[in-house]
Formats: sequence, C-alpha cells, structure tokens
Amino acid sequence: MQRKKAAAPVAADSTGFGAKLDAIHSILDIVISYCVRCGAGVSFLVPAGDNLPRHVCNACGHVHYENPRLVVGCVAEYEGRILLCRRAIEPRRGFWTLPAGFMENGESTAAAASREAREEAGADLIIDAPFALISIAHINQVHLFYRGRLATPKYSVGEESLEVELFALPEIPWAELSFRSVTLCLERYLADRRQGRYTFHEAELAPAQPLNRPG
Amino acid sequence: MQRKKAAAPVAADSTGFGAKLDAIHSILDIVISYCVRCGAGVSFLVPAGDNLPRHVCNACGHVHYENPRLVVGCVAEYEGRILLCRRAIEPRRGFWTLPAGFMENGESTAAAASREAREEAGADLIIDAPFALISIAHINQVHLFYRGRLATPKYSVGEESLEVELFALPEIPWAELSFRSVTLCLERYLADRRQGRYTFHEAELAPAQPLNRPG
Repeated sequence: MQRKKAAAPVAADSTGFGAKLDAIHSILDIVISYCVRCGAGVSFLVPAGDNLPRHVCNACGHVHYENPRLVVGCVAEYEGRILLCRRAIEPRRGFWTLPAGFMENGESTAAAASREAREEAGADLIIDAPFALISIAHINQVHLFYRGRLATPKYSVGEESLEVELFALPEIPWAELSFRSVTLCLERYLADRRQGRYTFHEAELAPAQPLNRPG
Repeated sequence: MQRKKAAAPVAADSTGFGAKLDAIHSILDIVISYCVRCGAGVSFLVPAGDNLPRHVCNACGHVHYENPRLVVGCVAEYEGRILLCRRAIEPRRGFWTLPAGFMENGESTAAAASREAREEAGADLIIDAPFALISIAHINQVHLFYRGRLATPKYSVGEESLEVELFALPEIPWAELSFRSVTLCLERYLADRRQGRYTFHEAELAPAQPLNRPG
C-alpha cells in the first residue's frame, strides 16, 4: 500500500497526461465572439473603470464577465472504505475519481456534493464538513471536497460512471486516479484519518510538468 | 458594543433591503439570447444527456453553461483592529464591507483575497487561512472569506471605496454593514477570537425575509 501510494503522483505526471489535459481544458473554453444579449460582435478590451480585458459588445456595450468554476465533491466512507467512481466520460475516461462535478446555479456547495454522489454513484451521503479547497488557476477552477459517509452500503453505477466501488485502503488505485486534485485530497484525508483528527486543507495546483525521461 | 452587535441582523432584515437586493441581483443576471460562438438565437431546453435546462444554440448546438460565482474576501487585523471599506458602488453604496469581490480567471482563491484588499483598501495582506464558506444559492454565489493581517497599518481609499478604516471592536458599525455574509463572517470571527481558536466555518444564507411590522 505504501509503495503504491508513494508512486502515484510521479506516475501520473511522468506521462505528461496532466499537461495534455490542461491543453484540452483550454481548447474547450469557448471563445466569446458574439454578444449574448444582442448578437452583435464583441471586442476584447479593458472596459472603463476596469483593469482586466473582457469581451465587450461592440453594439450594446454588454460586458461578458468570465469567472472560475467550482467543482464540488466528497470523500465518502462506509465502514472504513472509500467510495470511488470509474469515469465513463472524458477527460480521463476509465480513471477512478471521487464523486464530484461542476456546481450548478441555485444550489449550495453541500447540496452540489450530495447531488454529484447521487448522480455518479447512486449513493445518498451524509455530508459532514468541508475538507479541502484546491485552486487550479491555469484552468480557472476551484475544487472543493467535503468529507462524508454513506448511510447504507447502497450504491449504483450512474450515467457518467463505468464502475462504482467502495475501496479498502490497501486497494485504492493510486496509479489510476483521474485528477491530481483527487490524489491530493485522498492523501490529505488518509493522513488526517491516521491522526484521528480532520482539519480543513487548502492547496494550489500549478500546471503539471512532464518529467525529463531518458531516451 | 453588545447592544449594537445583537441588533444588527434584525435591523438589516427588517428594512426588507436584503430582499430588494436579491431582486436587483436577479435583474442584473443577463438573459442569454444569442450564441457566443456563432451569434444565432438560443433555446432554453434540457440538452441530450443532461438533466437541467440550458441555453442551447439553435444553429451550432453550443451549450451555454452558467455556474455560481465565487466572491472572495478577508477579515484582516492590525493590532486587534479590523479593516473595513465603505462601498462607493452599488449594491449597498455607503455601507461598510470586508474587502471582497468576484474571483477572476487565472488566480487562486488566496490571490483573489489579496488582490481585493489591495484594490479596495490599498492594503498588503498576509493571508493566514480560509475562514468561512457561505453558500447563497438564490443569487448563485459562494462567498469565501480568509483571515489575515496587515503587515503595516498602511492603507488607502481604493476606487470602489468611499472610506477605509481599521475598527476597534466596540466601533464596528454593525447596523451599517453591507451584506449578511459580511455580518455572519465577522460574528463568527469575533466569537472564535474570544475563544482563542479559529476553526473553518460553513453556512448557507436563504433569501432575506422582511419582518411583519405593525402598520
């Protein structure tokens, strides 16, 4: 177990997959070409009284603000085992993740964590407390993970999952985790659990750097 | 001091101003009528494989996702006094607030808190730790407050502020605070400070209800 765990972050980064993923994320960020309010073309400029460039409508002047998105999830236990989902969708199809996803308008962060676990893992969670806040500035995301529990061992495979499992600690597939934020969150969670005391964690993730490899 | 503090939330809600503010926030949310990618009209419908209605382009099919925004700020102390700014902009012009604002793309949450203090209060903060996370689902916002310190008592009035002051605790203008999240955060902060131990706080704010008043 220790071997697997220590090896995980290196394995994930050495493939360069993290860097490729960042590129995919950037491409997926749609450029704003037309105004949502009147349909005219926009220019990318610093509006009066502002200090950052925004997409501003050439006709009606509407400013299209773009802000980071919150991804909310949960580390959920049942009798000491951890709930993970194997992703059925890109990015990182086939890799294991904590149930998590983009927060929707009209819900609280805790409600978002519950909903994602229901949708991806068919699990009804008891949400205990916020656990980790991870800023990923280069992809304009903030990941927030709660810690919680399954009230019963009932779960099922949601539309966005290939498999859903409760993993005993020695079985956690460290080398097959989907995202660095998931690895980081699980590492901190298990460290806290060993110490018998959970605190709130904050971290920042910079772009993944592929390692120089011989040959 | 106790009198002022206890009276604050009631005074703020009894005016119904909170409810009016919610209405203003909703109006300011621009309806998406045209596609940002191709300029064609959009329809509000549930895309295939989704479970919530989105603005979907009638021509190119682009889905316009809308997600909650993060407002990030800081409770900053200097020699036991708290840094507050009197707002020069709507909503709540003339009321006192913790330095805070919308997080921008490309920055971490801690960087956002620092930047807001610099812009609104001309203050360089030492950011210590995340302190409070407040979901306000009905206006699609999440407020995150850090706790921190001014390295020196140097501050100035930024463009979005009418005044900036360090307030000793008995002088905090509870009845003139700008937003319920600010009041809630300051109350929790001072309660933790009295106990000599800071924890991480989570809360949800529902729409403000005007009190029934005689006459």
